[in-house]
Amino acid sequence: MESIERMISTSPSKPLLKTGVVDCIAACAECAVICISCADACLAEAQVAELRRCIRLNQDCADICSITARLVSRLLQPEVGVLRAQLEACALICASCGAECRKHAQHHEHCTVCADACRRCDEQCRKALSSLQAAA
Amino acid sequence: MESIERMISTSPSKPLLKTGVVDCIAACAECAVICISCADACLAEAQVAELRRCIRLNQDCADICSITARLVSRLLQPEVGVLRAQLEACALICASCGAECRKHAQHHEHCTVCADACRRCDEQCRKALSSLQAAA
Amino acid sequence: MESIERMISTSPSKPLLKTGVVDCIAACAECAVICISCADACLAEAQVAELRRCIRLNQDCADICSITARLVSRLLQPEVGVLRAQLEACALICASCGAECRKHAQHHEHCTVCADACRRCDEQCRKALSSLQAAA
Amino acid sequence: MESIERMISTSPSKPLLKTGVVDCIAACAECAVICISCADACLAEAQVAELRRCIRLNQDCADICSITARLVSRLLQPEVGVLRAQLEACALICASCGAECRKHAQHHEHCTVCADACRRCDEQCRKALSSLQAAA
Repeated sequence: MESIERMISTSPSKPLLKTGVVDCIAACAECAVICISCADACLAEAQVAELRRCIRLNQDCADICSITARLVSRLLQPEVGVLRAQLEACALICASCGAECRKHAQHHEHCTVCADACRRCDEQCRKALSSLQAAA
Repeated sequence: MESIERMISTSPSKPLLKTGVVDCIAACAECAVICISCADACLAEAQVAELRRCIRLNQDCADICSITARLVSRLLQPEVGVLRAQLEACALICASCGAECRKHAQHHEHCTVCADACRRCDEQCRKALSSLQAAA
Repeated sequence: MESIERMISTSPSKPLLKTGVVDCIAACAECAVICISCADACLAEAQVAELRRCIRLNQDCADICSITARLVSRLLQPEVGVLRAQLEACALICASCGAECRKHAQHHEHCTVCADACRRCDEQCRKALSSLQAAA
Repeated sequence: MESIERMISTSPSKPLLKTGVVDCIAACAECAVICISCADACLAEAQVAELRRCIRLNQDCADICSITARLVSRLLQPEVGVLRAQLEACALICASCGAECRKHAQHHEHCTVCADACRRCDEQCRKALSSLQAAA
């Protein structure tokens, strides 16, 4: 999002991540709302009993993505180890949740949309981790 | 966002809000990350002591917008009274936070960006409230 | 909790709420985790399809209680109107979620525990609202 | 908390953590509200400019503890790798935030209370990690 880019560029602090900070925040924020929406849609499906694991992972993914967006957005005196650990947790849940959603993609279009959002967020978190590595 | 639109349109549940549900979710999700970013930028400013109220309201606004996005995203059997009360709380904090940010806009560009995000979110929450009223 | 009481009493700011601020924070924080737990337990039940509304309200209640605890915990220059609106939203969702859980209490003990936590949180939010009224 | 214990024991799912699941949830939930409170108290202090790092870490710690409590509370079909990564992120931020708060403990009693909450949460997350290891 353009507004995120302007926030990052006008902060008195320089981002620890040399590149990709805006894309990472946007991907986490998007994945958070998409996962909330997918959990809700799965819960409304006739086959809800078969979608339990999907709902559970959607909830974890929404929670983790939401706070990862917050951590990456805070530029002032970050703690590198914490940032790395949180990005790793976020990449892991996005991979798990995305894989689970992909299984149901043929029957539920919302699971396709969610799997795509998870893949984008997983990628951005991994790019951010590489960028952190390069900065260290 | 296009992905939010696809989630809403492929859910088994129909939104209570006849119009504006996607714009409301997107505005809340954007305002949430922008406010986190503005609180962090304000905290890094030399004049942090004069930005205390801005930081405080940014934090409230980020928290409220974040969960309002979640409530509006859940379409399955919503509780109208709760949705209305939460949208009202969200419109109020966006108005307060936006007004405070506007005061510092001349000196801090991040406050301008945040005030704009708050205004958009306030508007979308008020539209959602009107749409709820019309549905009742 | 004793630790919350010590935080409130050692803050440089005086609480807007003359009484009950600690009990309100503790009740919101408790209700938030209990509702997450109840949503998870309901999702695991054989009759998950009949517990959809309970799960949905549990999720809303966890989200709203969680950020209401945050708002009430922040004592520095609060915005009275926002605090009131958020406490009202919290009391409403606790009443709705508690009523729904109570319906399933005979069959699911976790719903009994959750209905009790919702009732306590509803009460504390209403006390906080009265205390705000008295302060105004 | 007793209510958390009852929720865990009445869930249809068995916890992955053989021991300590209740203490871990309670410690995370407590640390989350204490950190919000400490950030607010630090922001109100005359020496706010020297407490910037404390405020920043308090915010990260509140966010991470809050969602770690949620993940640990969900017992249904957990993803071990994600749970481990999130507990590690939580232990790390509690150690960092606690160490920073300890530096200011002589001057600010709220930082003492917060450092203690961080230490307890760090310990409980590490116990949970050992318990996960033993279960694997």
